[in-house]
Amino acid sequence: MTKPTTKTDLWQRIEENFLRQGLLRTLQGELTRVEVGFVDIRIPYAASLSQQHGYLHAAATTAIADSACGYAALTTMPPGDEVLSVEFKVNLLAPAAGAAFTARARVIRGGRTLVVTAADVFAHATVGDEGKLVATVLATMIRLAAPQ
Amino acid sequence: MTKPTTKTDLWQRIEENFLRQGLLRTLQGELTRVEVGFVDIRIPYAASLSQQHGYLHAAATTAIADSACGYAALTTMPPGDEVLSVEFKVNLLAPAAGAAFTARARVIRGGRTLVVTAADVFAHATVGDEGKLVATVLATMIRLAAPQ
Amino acid sequence: MTKPTTKTDLWQRIEENFLRQGLLRTLQGELTRVEVGFVDIRIPYAASLSQQHGYLHAAATTAIADSACGYAALTTMPPGDEVLSVEFKVNLLAPAAGAAFTARARVIRGGRTLVVTAADVFAHATVGDEGKLVATVLATMIRLAAPQ
Amino acid sequence: MTKPTTKTDLWQRIEENFLRQGLLRTLQGELTRVEVGFVDIRIPYAASLSQQHGYLHAAATTAIADSACGYAALTTMPPGDEVLSVEFKVNLLAPAAGAAFTARARVIRGGRTLVVTAADVFAHATVGDEGKLVATVLATMIRLAAPQ
Repeated sequence: MTKPTTKTDLWQRIEENFLRQGLLRTLQGELTRVEVGFVDIRIPYAASLSQQHGYLHAAATTAIADSACGYAALTTMPPGDEVLSVEFKVNLLAPAAGAAFTARARVIRGGRTLVVTAADVFAHATVGDEGKLVATVLATMIRLAAPQ
Repeated sequence: MTKPTTKTDLWQRIEENFLRQGLLRTLQGELTRVEVGFVDIRIPYAASLSQQHGYLHAAATTAIADSACGYAALTTMPPGDEVLSVEFKVNLLAPAAGAAFTARARVIRGGRTLVVTAADVFAHATVGDEGKLVATVLATMIRLAAPQ
Repeated sequence: MTKPTTKTDLWQRIEENFLRQGLLRTLQGELTRVEVGFVDIRIPYAASLSQQHGYLHAAATTAIADSACGYAALTTMPPGDEVLSVEFKVNLLAPAAGAAFTARARVIRGGRTLVVTAADVFAHATVGDEGKLVATVLATMIRLAAPQ
Repeated sequence: MTKPTTKTDLWQRIEENFLRQGLLRTLQGELTRVEVGFVDIRIPYAASLSQQHGYLHAAATTAIADSACGYAALTTMPPGDEVLSVEFKVNLLAPAAGAAFTARARVIRGGRTLVVTAADVFAHATVGDEGKLVATVLATMIRLAAPQ
């Protein structure tokens, strides 16, 4: 959860996009890692995001995983490019019970048009623990090149 | 959007579960169809659910699709049973631009333990139009049988 | 299983590609429908394609579903274009027991670059019966445009 | 490709099942790793398994990935149990060009009923090289417990 005191240009570029996403603000999402090919997003638990047993709803799990995947893809592209999710698939592995949740995304395979990414989502019982794996995601992103 | 003036027992049973989901309240979700094997869920657009271009975030699309799939599966089970999502896969087909969105889910294949479901999500420009297909989902649900 | 006595140009174009696929010959695959946006492929059962219980192996089910999806996408493109599978997801719904199997594919959403398709695979106890649904597939195809 | 000169009991148990699969014999499949939670399967290239450009057909890639996933799940179960594939999803990352192909599968999450697995498929230009990643797979398996 420690962020660099001086954010890299890449971090700032991703964050600028991140802050435009109303849903990520609603989820109180925070970028906790931004490197070329890797992005982590963390959210706190909130009752407003629960499913019927009080755990984090699969859609919130998906939200941070899909977003982290999209940003992981974006870190591999030149400034001005954008990405859209083409498709994703999610396996829910355990009840998403915790005080906070982190999606850790990575690029599996880059490409001129499509970028394939994966993310694991971890539930943290306490701030700073390693977390328990609760979901795994495979996502395909498409690059929208900046107008030349 | 017209709901029967007298709700069926099945509708009430699904709705009772629905109202326990914090996330669906956050999304202002509403059940618009509940029949054996079929459930529709509708939400209005909200800026708090947007992605970076102002469209509905894929996670909100997923939220109503996954929930509708779960409830479609639940309609095929005896009272007291519960369902959990095992996995789902989502193809995003068009920008989710609209005033409201409906996920229409159906059971593809029942089973004692697993139920396979599918949902299509439609974006409505105006209340009551047929909507434009923006996403399609395939989801596997597992039955948690009520204690005997 | 009745094919037109005079094949359409589209049918011939798809068949020409189909015959270049060693695997589809190995499976004794046959095109049984070719229309814009729709392609069906049929194979007979063979012990050489079985899994450990003697049913058709999921990979053979996948082979005809993925191929039918690719050709359904190809029917929507101008001659000279090619398609590649980007990704697919398969739900296996019932044991693939039968004398023959048909994959019926359709285009869900066209696009300049990506085409999203779906297929259902049916098992036939006897030649000509309607078949029983044994698998459902969602697949994303990418267009490789012919050199201009 | 080096197999132990004395096969473990686990290896023999998996191999006995493996040899009952007609399709894996058709593909000339060979087990190259069998440990608790991990199974690798290797096949040589064959023109009879090609797609239209001469590469290995995605269905053959899928066949070894899905089978390796199923056996990885089976290694975590007591003798007498069986597994079936519930669903799988495949991202094709690069043309499957090579002299041989290995699927490396691992269990991501065990469970009493469902086991979630993943596999990567590598193409080998020469026997013994590390291989190039050509596909990644996420698969859900269901346990069929041996009659008590």
